[in-house]
Amino acid sequence: MPPMTLPPEFSLIARHFRPLAGPGALDLADDAALLDPPAGRQLVLAADAMVAGVHFLPDDPPGTIGRKLLRTNLSDLAAMGAAPLGYLMTVALPRGTPDAWIAAFAAGLGQDQAEFGLKVLGGDTVSTSGPISLSLTILGTVAPGEALRRVGARPGDEVWVSGTIGDGALGLLALTGRLPADPHLADRYRLPKPRLALGQALVGIARAAMDVSDGLAQDLGHLARAAGCAAEIRADSVPLSDPARAALAADPALLPRILGGGDDYELLFAAAPGDADRVLAAGRATQTSVTRIGRFLDGAGVMVLDGAGQPLDLPAAGWSHFA
Amino acid sequence: MPPMTLPPEFSLIARHFRPLAGPGALDLADDAALLDPPAGRQLVLAADAMVAGVHFLPDDPPGTIGRKLLRTNLSDLAAMGAAPLGYLMTVALPRGTPDAWIAAFAAGLGQDQAEFGLKVLGGDTVSTSGPISLSLTILGTVAPGEALRRVGARPGDEVWVSGTIGDGALGLLALTGRLPADPHLADRYRLPKPRLALGQALVGIARAAMDVSDGLAQDLGHLARAAGCAAEIRADSVPLSDPARAALAADPALLPRILGGGDDYELLFAAAPGDADRVLAAGRATQTSVTRIGRFLDGAGVMVLDGAGQPLDLPAAGWSHFA
Repeated sequence: MPPMTLPPEFSLIARHFRPLAGPGALDLADDAALLDPPAGRQLVLAADAMVAGVHFLPDDPPGTIGRKLLRTNLSDLAAMGAAPLGYLMTVALPRGTPDAWIAAFAAGLGQDQAEFGLKVLGGDTVSTSGPISLSLTILGTVAPGEALRRVGARPGDEVWVSGTIGDGALGLLALTGRLPADPHLADRYRLPKPRLALGQALVGIARAAMDVSDGLAQDLGHLARAAGCAAEIRADSVPLSDPARAALAADPALLPRILGGGDDYELLFAAAPGDADRVLAAGRATQTSVTRIGRFLDGAGVMVLDGAGQPLDLPAAGWSHFA
Repeated sequence: MPPMTLPPEFSLIARHFRPLAGPGALDLADDAALLDPPAGRQLVLAADAMVAGVHFLPDDPPGTIGRKLLRTNLSDLAAMGAAPLGYLMTVALPRGTPDAWIAAFAAGLGQDQAEFGLKVLGGDTVSTSGPISLSLTILGTVAPGEALRRVGARPGDEVWVSGTIGDGALGLLALTGRLPADPHLADRYRLPKPRLALGQALVGIARAAMDVSDGLAQDLGHLARAAGCAAEIRADSVPLSDPARAALAADPALLPRILGGGDDYELLFAAAPGDADRVLAAGRATQTSVTRIGRFLDGAGVMVLDGAGQPLDLPAAGWSHFA
């Protein structure tokens, strides 16, 4: 009675994904994972999907693709002020995906697991006749009632943003030949930097927060709408990286792309004017740059002002899947 | 300053998915959901993906597609003896998917949310150039240390299965014109019945358990392998529905499909011979049929015996995504 031969996905999972599994994952060999929720903490849960050709380029290095999805989910935790706990991931791959591709994909995830201190709890690997499709559910924790929320900004609060804006959107242009090649911008498109430490440091300081994924202008609209107020920002106060600043100087028509292109994964948040020093201290403590770019005010909508304080008419409202 | 126009997926989510959201989902309007883990319970977590043309038929009624994925995940909870808590779902749809399709898809999920007592906590809706791709992460709870596991069967234990086997695989044949149309079999392919009540009733009785998703023979191999032993079952003791029995009588060559085709989502479990009465009582208490179909024994592998006790040589080892 020889042991039955198992189908190839079992070996694929055992070789590439089992080494990534945390203790509760039961070696990815059971029907589900078991997890003791940390005592006295509230769970924070988010799920994101990524499809080749939509969220990443089909020829992106496989080692960055899983990391990008993990990092966009970590960015959701950062936006809530949460600490990572673990994740589950499903992977739909075309039949015939080379084993080396899967190995590099998993190795990238392993790097990020070490960097961000979490492990995989479970998942599923299936075949598809279409493009590579990934989905990830992340679990984090926060002290009960302390999560940062999108709702909470008030007229008079200041608008802050972490890091630099527009790099991801310009990186996509650079990777697709519409801008000169640029390693910094390409890297920012492929590997977002979830601002976990800053998010946690802003608990009790920021009145509202979210991460910028669909474009600064559109996402600021979410904070304003949740607060029932308006927001205005100065375009020239939006923090740009040196490569983004150079690209904008060469082609001022890139401004809507920078402010609306998405893929930033920076934190966008509101703080009372009197808390500016605390915000700056949180940035210093977490080695994350933070920049004041505008304010919330009575009314509705988002206005972007030029250097003379005049409203700019920006064509793009942000990324849409179904426009 | 008029409010900015939001892209169509926001309206899609607000109209179809927000009504399904549980309290911790924050109206699906924040970066993540918040959940207070039930005190004194262990979390149980599983994720499954489904792709049109692989796990369901592209022309299946949209109202059954989301329910099938939810139910396959609930079946994973059932296999662990867990109770449902909530779920997150990501949906990748071709651009141009009709709004009516999405409405029916969401309505089906709503039906099952009511039937199984859980609500959606979060998710993501994206576009794809390929087939519809869904992913769902389910959360459940179990008393700490009480979860049913795949490991634990011992030589001498009996092999039990719930419900009937083969209906889902024959339903797929019926839906694709390879068997005569049959509403019962089609329904079993499209809408698995997660055995949640039975799974919970088997805690403390079953020594090992899993759900049958890849075919009875292959999945029994998992229980045997986890236990470091062998298993044998009698083909004629495997419970069949009337339509499956009739199909098998008409074409005995369907046996490998019935025992290996998958899509059963029944519970397969091990119990000590002395616990047979407790197993039967658990079945009665939960109004779920349970049938003893074989036993675990020393050795390795799975043997399927005919009515005369002779080993059958079954060609199919179970469903594979990458064979």
